[in-house]
Amino acid sequence: MSNYSTMEKTALKAEYDSLKASFEAYKAQGLKLNMARGKPGSEQLNISNDMLTVLTADTDYSSPDCPDCRNYGNLTGLESAQKLFADILGVEPKNVFVGGNSSLNMMFDTIACMMELGCSGEKPWREQGKIKFLCPAPGYDRHFGVTGYFGIEMITVPMTENGPDMDMVEKLVSEDASIKGIWCVPKYSNPQGITYSDETVKRFASLKPAAKDFRIMWDNAYIIHDINDTPDQLLNIFDEVKKTGNEDIVFEFCSTSKITFPGAGVAALAASENNLAILKKRYNFQTIGYDKMNMLRHVKYFGDLNGVLAHMQKHRAVLEPRFNMVLDMLEKELKDCGVATWTKPNGGYFVSVDVTEGCAKRVVALCKEAGVVLTGAGATYPYGNDPKDSNIRIAPTYPPVEELAKAMEIFCICAKMAAIEKLI
Amino acid sequence: MSNYSTMEKTALKAEYDSLKASFEAYKAQGLKLNMARGKPGSEQLNISNDMLTVLTADTDYSSPDCPDCRNYGNLTGLESAQKLFADILGVEPKNVFVGGNSSLNMMFDTIACMMELGCSGEKPWREQGKIKFLCPAPGYDRHFGVTGYFGIEMITVPMTENGPDMDMVEKLVSEDASIKGIWCVPKYSNPQGITYSDETVKRFASLKPAAKDFRIMWDNAYIIHDINDTPDQLLNIFDEVKKTGNEDIVFEFCSTSKITFPGAGVAALAASENNLAILKKRYNFQTIGYDKMNMLRHVKYFGDLNGVLAHMQKHRAVLEPRFNMVLDMLEKELKDCGVATWTKPNGGYFVSVDVTEGCAKRVVALCKEAGVVLTGAGATYPYGNDPKDSNIRIAPTYPPVEELAKAMEIFCICAKMAAIEKLI
Repeated sequence: MSNYSTMEKTALKAEYDSLKASFEAYKAQGLKLNMARGKPGSEQLNISNDMLTVLTADTDYSSPDCPDCRNYGNLTGLESAQKLFADILGVEPKNVFVGGNSSLNMMFDTIACMMELGCSGEKPWREQGKIKFLCPAPGYDRHFGVTGYFGIEMITVPMTENGPDMDMVEKLVSEDASIKGIWCVPKYSNPQGITYSDETVKRFASLKPAAKDFRIMWDNAYIIHDINDTPDQLLNIFDEVKKTGNEDIVFEFCSTSKITFPGAGVAALAASENNLAILKKRYNFQTIGYDKMNMLRHVKYFGDLNGVLAHMQKHRAVLEPRFNMVLDMLEKELKDCGVATWTKPNGGYFVSVDVTEGCAKRVVALCKEAGVVLTGAGATYPYGNDPKDSNIRIAPTYPPVEELAKAMEIFCICAKMAAIEKLI
Repeated sequence: MSNYSTMEKTALKAEYDSLKASFEAYKAQGLKLNMARGKPGSEQLNISNDMLTVLTADTDYSSPDCPDCRNYGNLTGLESAQKLFADILGVEPKNVFVGGNSSLNMMFDTIACMMELGCSGEKPWREQGKIKFLCPAPGYDRHFGVTGYFGIEMITVPMTENGPDMDMVEKLVSEDASIKGIWCVPKYSNPQGITYSDETVKRFASLKPAAKDFRIMWDNAYIIHDINDTPDQLLNIFDEVKKTGNEDIVFEFCSTSKITFPGAGVAALAASENNLAILKKRYNFQTIGYDKMNMLRHVKYFGDLNGVLAHMQKHRAVLEPRFNMVLDMLEKELKDCGVATWTKPNGGYFVSVDVTEGCAKRVVALCKEAGVVLTGAGATYPYGNDPKDSNIRIAPTYPPVEELAKAMEIFCICAKMAAIEKLI
């Protein structure tokens, strides 16, 4: 295969006709394949099934800080669950708040709390007029959704191979006090699988924002989600902010959604004592406490951090071949013809593909026509607006392996078709 | 025993000395008894233990609307859970949103949603300046807590034996467009155990508030929580608002917190299609979905409404003797001396005692001195301010039976002591 940009029109046209024939053949199959969302597949879900019978009618439902986990109470979560998440995050248990089944919900509530109560002695965010958030992009569409819901203006910051463009971040936050925060997925970022470099983390910990009430939303969703023998290492942001005396600048989030069950996991956040005190001013009225039985179920099932890490190896065994299949196919089908570039993550849930500029929407539309659902083009950018119309997020985890192979074949065909359409 | 108000001072003094001696004897025992919160006791929690093993590694985790309950999705809850709650509430499944483990959290989120988005085409509540809520009192302290958190002014409405004083409710809401809602616990109200009369429910359904965006927060926490052979009957508010064309005026809430486990139950709300559409505008960004495995666990455990009702009979068997003990002791110790009046509920979680005016704080303090924790005096009123300093909420469910008896003895002694202190 030659690089399309060097091919003559007639050759390109012939190539297109051949691709189109394959496309039509797939289309005729009436397929329903889905690579849209970062959902674990059945094989991964089965890994955690034994957790369901950890609690029985004979279990001791007490713990040192709770006479009976079946009953009301323990707003910040069971101490044993705080300890487990503290060990995952590398922080002190006293800095951990264990919540319900969704870290997204905890992020949403955190933003709501800042809007309503504010922090660092400043007025509530919603009383400060127009406020803004930095949104490294491509990024996680649901982060942008929360920001948009609260009417916060989003400023796109480009991602580099080391994380967000820190020159730009530093400049913007030091100059503009209406910038109140930034969304970060620091390890195996969604969708690129990039892990922030040590320097990036240190620069975050050293930020001197014009807004005293600026906060980093550190969504460490994939903190232990390695998929091969060369996992990335992320500096611990809480260690770094301790060194710089900047403990109040960060909220960190994680969950077991992609460790046990997405629909029935446990989420947690870590924060400084000042920040936790503010959150508790809201949580105190919001609920009496989250599901302690599910916390207990998780704690008893895993035992400790080692139990969690051993469990993650089972996920890796499922995911590594899937990611390899996707990457191999991209390499084989798209490299020589030069119609796309992509990331090769060591963990996380996505492969991020940049197709020929101006072609992402067309590729997603073609795929849909052939029965393959992808995340909407643009979804990885604030306001759904990818300025280059180039980025597509591939989620290789959910479909059965044989469907994944077929879906990737179709994806590559569509990426090539769209590129040729652009060229001729 | 004579009525204290007719006794001479010397006789009262002698009575006081005798009470004081008993008080000191209890105090010397260093007791730690608790009648503060409406928490089920261990015996009640044990009733639901078999629910814990309903889901196993071999369970079919699918349902018609969800290929795998372990995974993400189904924002409004599993259809089977919507159906179960619909049957409990007497509404259509399409009007039910099933949430996490806390109906309080759903109420909090509903108020937050109205503050942020508004309803009935009006501006968001928080953009309308000072707004107010009607708070029937005595009532549930956590309702008042949510209202206060959002900076909503609370107006106390007296409770009658038929529910809130509807003359006052109708007058206020028809005259003042800044009144945006009212808190109701329509069946076995917290703390009095009063069930709203048919006329009260019909008058609620026929309300014509000055504010188009006025909402009734119908917290049906004790909808099926009968404790004897003469249960109260509550009219179905959704049937009534249908008749009056007032479907958008009410949000209804309930949960299994006092059916299965307070810490690990399932909560739900019912609302009109218009109201649900507004809530979903917020929930869409707040979360991907609540814990479907816990929904499935509940659905499979109960089967249907009949399963739930049979289950409630087991709670009744535990609660009826406790309530009888409390009521018998009040009758025996406090009736003749005329220092208190109280309600005799047919369900719910509380007995509401009105001690001699100006004595509630003193009674609670004396009880505390003798080792009995009660809900703080005033907690049942907005701003913690009981104008008569008279109402005390007794929660007979949590302590072991022998402790409950002792706690009630002490309570009666303290009620009498405080009354005599006032008289002499």
